[in-house]
Amino acid sequence: MEPFRYHVYLCTQEKPGGKPCCSANGSAAVLDALRAELGKAGLGDEVQVTTSGSLGLCERGPNLVVYPEGIWYSKVSTEDVAEIVREHFLGGKPVTRLQSGDEATLRGEILENKRRYLASLAAQAAGR
Amino acid sequence: MEPFRYHVYLCTQEKPGGKPCCSANGSAAVLDALRAELGKAGLGDEVQVTTSGSLGLCERGPNLVVYPEGIWYSKVSTEDVAEIVREHFLGGKPVTRLQSGDEATLRGEILENKRRYLASLAAQAAGR
Repeated sequence: MEPFRYHVYLCTQEKPGGKPCCSANGSAAVLDALRAELGKAGLGDEVQVTTSGSLGLCERGPNLVVYPEGIWYSKVSTEDVAEIVREHFLGGKPVTRLQSGDEATLRGEILENKRRYLASLAAQAAGR
Repeated sequence: MEPFRYHVYLCTQEKPGGKPCCSANGSAAVLDALRAELGKAGLGDEVQVTTSGSLGLCERGPNLVVYPEGIWYSKVSTEDVAEIVREHFLGGKPVTRLQSGDEATLRGEILENKRRYLASLAAQAAGR
């Protein structure tokens, strides 16, 4: 039911206090580069790009997820964007070297970050 | 490669000047209700919830998209959340009455909103 050939969610989460996050790692520049490159490739209406909150892999942003496949990319730089557009969005072949890892690794890392975040909220609420 | 059974992107976009947006239509309350209901159902680690920027259906938010299927839901209220969790995430059956529409309708509406948004940016940049 997805109305686009691909739908990309790019994390632009900001975190306070110098904590690692996609924003501090340059996600805004990656977003600009991605939109520009899609426009050049004539894919502006075929590949939908949506910003997102934290995807839970904060230490290795910028992170993005591509559907319909559910391909997770990490540490994406502006220099990588043309390759993603050419190989994945035009050629249909995900860029293996940028993929975040296998399901179990991703799941473990994301859930661990979530637990740590909830613990910090609880500590704040308790005034510690 | 998605590390979760379901991954939900819920738009929490805010727009200035009283323009229609998911935030003005109560997306924060829907987010809270969704997280609470998933916890109650024991699905906190199985259904990942990520906030997102505009999905392009601003007139009928709160909007959310559920993967792996790519099911778009619109006008979701806190009262609808338990049904989505029970029917879709536990039962595997999307809630038809909340689905946003067919692909062509969604695509047309999203691209029209995008064109309008880009035109307003261009007008701002031109000082009109």
